[in-house]
Amino acid sequence: MKAVGICGSDVHFLKALRLADYVVKEPMVIGHECAGIIEETGSEVKNLVPGDRVALEPGIGCWRCDLCKEGRYNICPDMKFFGLPPFHGSLARQIVHPAYLCFKLPDNVSLEEGALCEPLSVAVHACRRGNISPETNVLVMGAGPIGLVTLLAARAFGAPRIVTVDVDGNRLSVAKELGADGVVEVSTNMQDIPKEVETICNVMGAKVDVSFDCAGLSKTMSTALSVTRAGGKVCLVGLGHNEMTVPLTPAAAREVDVIGVFRYKNTWPLCIELLRSGKMDVKPLITHRFGFSQKEIEEAFETSAGDGNAIKVMFNL
Amino acid sequence: MKAVGICGSDVHFLKALRLADYVVKEPMVIGHECAGIIEETGSEVKNLVPGDRVALEPGIGCWRCDLCKEGRYNICPDMKFFGLPPFHGSLARQIVHPAYLCFKLPDNVSLEEGALCEPLSVAVHACRRGNISPETNVLVMGAGPIGLVTLLAARAFGAPRIVTVDVDGNRLSVAKELGADGVVEVSTNMQDIPKEVETICNVMGAKVDVSFDCAGLSKTMSTALSVTRAGGKVCLVGLGHNEMTVPLTPAAAREVDVIGVFRYKNTWPLCIELLRSGKMDVKPLITHRFGFSQKEIEEAFETSAGDGNAIKVMFNL
Amino acid sequence: MKAVGICGSDVHFLKALRLADYVVKEPMVIGHECAGIIEETGSEVKNLVPGDRVALEPGIGCWRCDLCKEGRYNICPDMKFFGLPPFHGSLARQIVHPAYLCFKLPDNVSLEEGALCEPLSVAVHACRRGNISPETNVLVMGAGPIGLVTLLAARAFGAPRIVTVDVDGNRLSVAKELGADGVVEVSTNMQDIPKEVETICNVMGAKVDVSFDCAGLSKTMSTALSVTRAGGKVCLVGLGHNEMTVPLTPAAAREVDVIGVFRYKNTWPLCIELLRSGKMDVKPLITHRFGFSQKEIEEAFETSAGDGNAIKVMFNL
Amino acid sequence: MKAVGICGSDVHFLKALRLADYVVKEPMVIGHECAGIIEETGSEVKNLVPGDRVALEPGIGCWRCDLCKEGRYNICPDMKFFGLPPFHGSLARQIVHPAYLCFKLPDNVSLEEGALCEPLSVAVHACRRGNISPETNVLVMGAGPIGLVTLLAARAFGAPRIVTVDVDGNRLSVAKELGADGVVEVSTNMQDIPKEVETICNVMGAKVDVSFDCAGLSKTMSTALSVTRAGGKVCLVGLGHNEMTVPLTPAAAREVDVIGVFRYKNTWPLCIELLRSGKMDVKPLITHRFGFSQKEIEEAFETSAGDGNAIKVMFNL
Repeated sequence: MKAVGICGSDVHFLKALRLADYVVKEPMVIGHECAGIIEETGSEVKNLVPGDRVALEPGIGCWRCDLCKEGRYNICPDMKFFGLPPFHGSLARQIVHPAYLCFKLPDNVSLEEGALCEPLSVAVHACRRGNISPETNVLVMGAGPIGLVTLLAARAFGAPRIVTVDVDGNRLSVAKELGADGVVEVSTNMQDIPKEVETICNVMGAKVDVSFDCAGLSKTMSTALSVTRAGGKVCLVGLGHNEMTVPLTPAAAREVDVIGVFRYKNTWPLCIELLRSGKMDVKPLITHRFGFSQKEIEEAFETSAGDGNAIKVMFNL
Repeated sequence: MKAVGICGSDVHFLKALRLADYVVKEPMVIGHECAGIIEETGSEVKNLVPGDRVALEPGIGCWRCDLCKEGRYNICPDMKFFGLPPFHGSLARQIVHPAYLCFKLPDNVSLEEGALCEPLSVAVHACRRGNISPETNVLVMGAGPIGLVTLLAARAFGAPRIVTVDVDGNRLSVAKELGADGVVEVSTNMQDIPKEVETICNVMGAKVDVSFDCAGLSKTMSTALSVTRAGGKVCLVGLGHNEMTVPLTPAAAREVDVIGVFRYKNTWPLCIELLRSGKMDVKPLITHRFGFSQKEIEEAFETSAGDGNAIKVMFNL
Repeated sequence: MKAVGICGSDVHFLKALRLADYVVKEPMVIGHECAGIIEETGSEVKNLVPGDRVALEPGIGCWRCDLCKEGRYNICPDMKFFGLPPFHGSLARQIVHPAYLCFKLPDNVSLEEGALCEPLSVAVHACRRGNISPETNVLVMGAGPIGLVTLLAARAFGAPRIVTVDVDGNRLSVAKELGADGVVEVSTNMQDIPKEVETICNVMGAKVDVSFDCAGLSKTMSTALSVTRAGGKVCLVGLGHNEMTVPLTPAAAREVDVIGVFRYKNTWPLCIELLRSGKMDVKPLITHRFGFSQKEIEEAFETSAGDGNAIKVMFNL
Repeated sequence: MKAVGICGSDVHFLKALRLADYVVKEPMVIGHECAGIIEETGSEVKNLVPGDRVALEPGIGCWRCDLCKEGRYNICPDMKFFGLPPFHGSLARQIVHPAYLCFKLPDNVSLEEGALCEPLSVAVHACRRGNISPETNVLVMGAGPIGLVTLLAARAFGAPRIVTVDVDGNRLSVAKELGADGVVEVSTNMQDIPKEVETICNVMGAKVDVSFDCAGLSKTMSTALSVTRAGGKVCLVGLGHNEMTVPLTPAAAREVDVIGVFRYKNTWPLCIELLRSGKMDVKPLITHRFGFSQKEIEEAFETSAGDGNAIKVMFNL
């Protein structure tokens, strides 16, 4: 393992020793955004040799259930996923992983970029679920790491106009630098939704075909549902609050569909191709780098959890 | 016009003189579930002659906007719809309507059945949006008129198991008579959702692939979202409360999509064929019939609005 | 193994020792339409116990390639399939097979019916690829075993009108008995296509939405392409001649798509449910039964290969 | 009318006075690739005013038939199309056309580019039918005007690799200049298909996900069917020979679908946006320009019909 990024869920596990229904009962390695160098391969492995630089897809489907067999292995109920109890993660010097989930990196794609294929995969899967194309104007609610990669992915899928919304002006500046056609700074107050919807429409200057809610809160979802055009889609990517109070009925009456987005499937080859061809540049997302000493590990997680300007914190092992 | 059914929205307009954003400002004819006999046709009409018995599709798309041109005329923002201000409805002895929206009835389909093609169309459109097939186990939340036609339509689309849920035992008896494989009586209490979800699963005896929420309340939607399998769909058909408090996030994490369903498009030919072939029998839905005298009209609306056992109230003009 | 049906490809292998690019180089067991009783299970198998009656899905995907991961394992290039060299088939008293490809039969579904899930699966997969619903009028070219199960499957998927076409009047009588709404006897002469197209349209009495070519010859495909409505589909199920001379261009100009259909995926549960519920009756397809003595085996293959009235020949082991 | 391009079908009508089943019986204006300036509008027209520069979509659907209502107006059997008997075309100084089929051009899109929205629309519709995305490697058979715009459109839809095939080296040079990642010069000899398939695979250096046959001949279609990966698509765009002799069966056994592509629907806004944003540059396609004198008109058609290096011939009226 050579490059491992820190995800919000890693921080959450570290602090709370649980996430949703997953409880950490025994010491467990976390981490799932990773790339490394092949040291040894099994006797049947043909696509890889020692020395190959690879990015790792972290989830292993069961390939027995209906969902796996139908090609939706991302929602397989028996998936073994890096760092989700009881399975160890990849923030370690050496791990064992199936060859078919190790994807060789081209020379011009770094190991750090390889590790970023994981969050990027969430965005690519979201764009597929939202059917983003050169005909789709896109709204992204949230300019955190997932919101930013969704912006990059939507651009790579050809979206002609992309507007990003957040409560934090600094994050919006980053969105702007990464290519957002417009940004809108909003409040956390539900009362402001109507006027913010109007502002978003003005900044978009066109219909909102698909919205990505990368926060997952009552307010972000309500805004997304209200602003999306009749027949459009709202993709729920960020899994914030469990319950939301949202105007689902008026949205349904315009046949705005709410599309659930969970992890990813079959995304690594596309992510690597987008990075290789230069259609997407994720390097600006890496704001902090740390080595793998005890002290640096602690600093890294503090930086990632902090209120500072960290977007993506990366370990170089 | 020979047969006109009363819809809940008609009653609502009569009492409140408004529905959602539609306000009645001048005297207006209501009614949109209708069938009649052609009296006269325009010079270019080729598919109809005087004397033909026809069912009428009540909405006229603009055929100019993007949605009409893409085949989603049901959500055309400029649709002219019977009984939606400022357009008159069809509860009248004579009306003028485009020939391409008048569908000839076969000899074995009555005018009353023709009028019922309208609510049935909502159900057919919902089944199409939900992609119901012989592989889809169906849950129907609500056993009012729309819930019951949805049950009938899901059966016609081949659904192997259909379970209906309601708070009213009498309505559930009707659902049972109309062919529900199972029924579950529930409370209006949000606290009961977990145990009711368990009961529904037991009664279904299989995964719930698609749920139709024909009520549109926080509780019905929460139940539907919780009980639907990973990768399934919840179709929001009944437009009850504007805002809902619902567990959208855990549903999205199982990629359960929420599909908006509004009215219908291109449904009359299929409805008529299902009635003609006997694959669907809607006659039991008509519980009350009235003539068109002033006194009977008042009685009819009182019956439809009442808490009694009326399912569908029909005028014979 | 208790019931094994003979497929045309089995006969072909027996006679020619090859099929397409597959060449038999060493002694090989054939057979792939099969059902049996579990004798022993592996230590991790939870869904089956000895004594369970099961139908077997004969192909084992690699679950590593893009197609398997996308849910199209039926066209996996590394599939291991019963009786396709170098893999043995299932016409044997005992075989070893993955538990997730063994599907338990309900009490009211016989082992013979279980064996017929295999040809039925071809038909079910074809109906899915053709998107058959209560709105789809269906034409079936060919009334051999695959044409007949396609007729049964299209009915189960709700097709309102189904017309079957063949050169053999006896086969058409069987189609009629199995529920075809109309049958058309045709010649093998290409010149007759225009008038036969007219006859098919008359017998259908409606537009042909989807055609299944279960023969795969220039004439059957040409007829199907010509008779299918604008925007419809022709599903190529029967793999007859490699090359065909067909009017593809006029069909493309009406956006008639040609859909390839190869084997099946995820079909056993649906087939078993259709048999269990009585929505489909495949028993009339079994015209001959044989035991497993040397003499009977030879007779069975002669019967299946003969020009007689055999539809499906079944071994009872 | 200010800019009108010449299409191969115009030349065909001029020479043969017929095309497929369409026969010219009376003097008829041809032309359908056009843009102009609004001179006068009807009283209900709100989206346009005199002086607006507009591109014209040439076909008027009936908006009454099933296909129009389902959003597939491009295959409406009652479409009125510029220059298809008995309807006049647009190679005239003034014409009358519905406002909803006149699309306003932004300042940075010229009238000539506006006229090219018509052939470009064919390509855009083909890319939609083929579902081209950043994940789709594309093969284009033919480097004539339609092949070249298909190349441009596939690029705009994000295709990572595009290879163009033709018999003419000059045309391939143009394809290369317009951005083809690779080109392959082929013969007209059917025998050469196997080795040409191998060359195409080598030049592509990846799987061919979708092929566009922009010629429509036995050889181009056979090559496309053979070279496309399992589960891929062959889109038949060029309507060359009516009958083709093609290896449909082996393609169907890999579930390669043949997708018919006819004209376009709802494409003008996207084409204009792609031109406005600079994502697509069609100006290099215009190789010859002519005025509207009798002499120049004759020269223009001779140039277009000639074996020279004309790609698109444009009238400036």
